[in-house]
Amino acid sequence: MSDLIVSPAQLSAFICATFSAVGLPEADAHTVGTLMAEADVQGSDGHGVIRVPVYIRRILGGAVNVTPNIRVVEERAATALVDGDNGMGHLVMKRATELAIEKARTCGVAWVGSRFSNHAGPASLYARMPLAHDMVGLYFAVGNANHLPPWGGLDMLLSTNPIAVAFPTHKETPVVLDMATTVAAYGKVKAKAMMGQMMPEGWMVDRQGQPLLDPNRRDEGFLLPIGGYKGYGLSMIVGLFAGTLNGAAMGKEVVDFNNDDTSVTNTGQAICVIDPSAFGDVQAFKLRVDKLVQEIHASERMPGVEQVWVPGEQSHLKRLHNLKHGISIPSSLTHELDTVAHQLGVPTLAHTTV
Amino acid sequence: MSDLIVSPAQLSAFICATFSAVGLPEADAHTVGTLMAEADVQGSDGHGVIRVPVYIRRILGGAVNVTPNIRVVEERAATALVDGDNGMGHLVMKRATELAIEKARTCGVAWVGSRFSNHAGPASLYARMPLAHDMVGLYFAVGNANHLPPWGGLDMLLSTNPIAVAFPTHKETPVVLDMATTVAAYGKVKAKAMMGQMMPEGWMVDRQGQPLLDPNRRDEGFLLPIGGYKGYGLSMIVGLFAGTLNGAAMGKEVVDFNNDDTSVTNTGQAICVIDPSAFGDVQAFKLRVDKLVQEIHASERMPGVEQVWVPGEQSHLKRLHNLKHGISIPSSLTHELDTVAHQLGVPTLAHTTV
Repeated sequence: MSDLIVSPAQLSAFICATFSAVGLPEADAHTVGTLMAEADVQGSDGHGVIRVPVYIRRILGGAVNVTPNIRVVEERAATALVDGDNGMGHLVMKRATELAIEKARTCGVAWVGSRFSNHAGPASLYARMPLAHDMVGLYFAVGNANHLPPWGGLDMLLSTNPIAVAFPTHKETPVVLDMATTVAAYGKVKAKAMMGQMMPEGWMVDRQGQPLLDPNRRDEGFLLPIGGYKGYGLSMIVGLFAGTLNGAAMGKEVVDFNNDDTSVTNTGQAICVIDPSAFGDVQAFKLRVDKLVQEIHASERMPGVEQVWVPGEQSHLKRLHNLKHGISIPSSLTHELDTVAHQLGVPTLAHTTV
Repeated sequence: MSDLIVSPAQLSAFICATFSAVGLPEADAHTVGTLMAEADVQGSDGHGVIRVPVYIRRILGGAVNVTPNIRVVEERAATALVDGDNGMGHLVMKRATELAIEKARTCGVAWVGSRFSNHAGPASLYARMPLAHDMVGLYFAVGNANHLPPWGGLDMLLSTNPIAVAFPTHKETPVVLDMATTVAAYGKVKAKAMMGQMMPEGWMVDRQGQPLLDPNRRDEGFLLPIGGYKGYGLSMIVGLFAGTLNGAAMGKEVVDFNNDDTSVTNTGQAICVIDPSAFGDVQAFKLRVDKLVQEIHASERMPGVEQVWVPGEQSHLKRLHNLKHGISIPSSLTHELDTVAHQLGVPTLAHTTV
């Protein structure tokens, strides 16, 4: 069976239909559909339509509130704490980011945290939102399953806790970094298992600290943080910003949402937005970012290296490709999505019309 | 010759005297002395009194302004850009951090950047300052010499660009992360050379990408970022926040201040301060941080591991030790400092009285 090729609009409409079918208000289902399809468009395919089955399963299990009262529960001139009322994370963090952009326009910077949110897709979705306003985004999230112990320890107290940052540019592609604080994201381990491949050394170790290469033995070990104890520290700090500061789950409180269809996760995230016009002329700033990108592009290369990339460029190329040629959905995933569509009584992805 | 043991007050007074002798106003010399001695007290001995000879040499060379007009050149409710007028970085960033604390008290968060600053010592000095106000600090700096190319490249366009973060606690030691975005700081490479030791694999590679183990061959290669391309991305982002956003040096503009006694570095830094009271009850927040620290301490340990540390704890123990027993200055450094003292006509460190 070959891959199914769909347009972003078709993908978005299908996702919207599934969430609408389980009770999300039309506007909210549309927002979730748009953001999840955008994840696939930018190549974050581990965080796009592939998550529909789990999200729907959790909604049907009663773990997620489909009609949340998302509201600001603490507020100052440049900050807010948004209580997501256990709604879809996409809705919570879109609201939080829009609020941060508005506040940054006045105050120069804003920091908005969330609690009782849920998994919200790829970190860069929210870090990128300020770009349209010529602003800088900085995003932190508590990952939704603990696969990382503290350095030297064995208890799974930390997650892949990602950081994303986006800087606007003038002519160049915006600089967008989106990274887990572990060497590999857990989804990559599962992908290796599906493909029947071994993992490279450095992704995981077992409980004796020995390299763990077989992804089917992943439950016997844990992910490694980037830079050893430094990545452990980063993961903890990201969790403090995104979880602990907001009264959201951190450490032992984190719920593995892939294996639980009934528990409230109390997921926390944080978005910081900076308005560069508070630091001088915006155009001059964007030209300085361009200049740095150009210096990096012009760098002499190591033997065998064809191009020196700036963070965000490969994702940008995938976006351009997917917008032109459509998004490729593997047949195994299409099959899973068809099952969900039949269950909910909505047209399958292939039969979704825009 | 054995090490010289000095009290923090004696060390601070000596440093103050040297900067006073080269023209810093008394209050400024005192501030620099206090902050540099504090670096040694907390065990950041690569950033304390060891830097006196270089700082003094650059002041005598005309590279640093001893009577700067440090001033706010851009300002909004929650942001400021501080122009350091090429003064000592310690003075610039103390001023910037105090302003950020003041603004965070009103706005909930504040972000203050610097330009025309200089090397300011260990990153954690400034991230820690908000702790006394029960606030969170997040600090970024452009390193003062480029030892890191972009991933896959060979041009030295990036530095060890450090991040420091400090979170207040209730009973536990504050969580303080202070890390270069490279596997090893460049000072550690030089220390290995001084001790006649090889470097471990993973610190540096040569221009063919092969491991470089001999620290005396360090000019033939470059530092490795943590987590490969991820650490490259982090270093770039830190530089965008600390340098590019503020109109400070980044990329090719960065001056290697260890090998240059006359050029203005236009160093940039940034400090973000969050007031946790803007997100709820501060005491409850500090207890949540304590709880996470306690969960980490209680973690089961890998074989051979005696203790699971939280970032900042080892530095805290060094501080307690140094406050009780004094700071140990190696004889080679004492000799260097004596030379500076004789040159400036101030009492040597051993003869400094408090």
